Amino acid sequence: MDIEKMLEIESLYSQYASLLTDKQRDIISMYYDEDYSLGEISQILKISRQSVYDSLKRSETALKDYESKLGMIDKMKQIEIFVNSIEKCLCFDKENKENMTLEIDAERVTQLKVILDEIKELI
Amino acid sequence: MDIEKMLEIESLYSQYASLLTDKQRDIISMYYDEDYSLGEISQILKISRQSVYDSLKRSETALKDYESKLGMIDKMKQIEIFVNSIEKCLCFDKENKENMTLEIDAERVTQLKVILDEIKELI
Repeated sequence: MDIEKMLEIESLYSQYASLLTDKQRDIISMYYDEDYSLGEISQILKISRQSVYDSLKRSETALKDYESKLGMIDKMKQIEIFVNSIEKCLCFDKENKENMTLEIDAERVTQLKVILDEIKELI
Repeated sequence: MDIEKMLEIESLYSQYASLLTDKQRDIISMYYDEDYSLGEISQILKISRQSVYDSLKRSETALKDYESKLGMIDKMKQIEIFVNSIEKCLCFDKENKENMTLEIDAERVTQLKVILDEIKELI
């Protein structure tokens, strides 16, 4: 299976699984997490191979549609980038080990303010 | 109209409007944003007052259901609280005005690390 597609579906599934039906969730989970083939899922659930395939396609389309409408994954990725930037700005690795204080120069103070404002814009 | 309920619906609508149909969006918007009565909406859209009422109720239920399943509003509120805590920890108001650097004591450094980790847990 195409690893990039698998990661994309897993990411969409982790965010939007609750909007799928129980049956759609079962089939996605068996196919992507448990690595069953379409034929095996068909045997286990006692439905045709075509039904398994159709369900998977419908679920994938639905998951992509939810992301295009809600953009939660995109938003969380942006917040993650901002949080990483805050950590970088704070440069914890350069902590003064003696008294454990942190001194942040003027440029970084400005950067931090901008980042925090950008997160606020997103939420 | 109950102001608390109105604010709740507006918050849900701002997050999940894209998952409603065009017609549901029109009716919610006329009722909550433009302050039309059920009767007025019924006349404008040439549908029964009961249909307007039913559409509103269905939309409200759907919006609440999306939040209970996805929890985006809850998550964004938590991130907002964390971002405010970061700002407080950085205490920009206590900047050294001469050279514009910021000195953060050990306790606040620890707090900042905890907050950043908590945001990462959420995203």
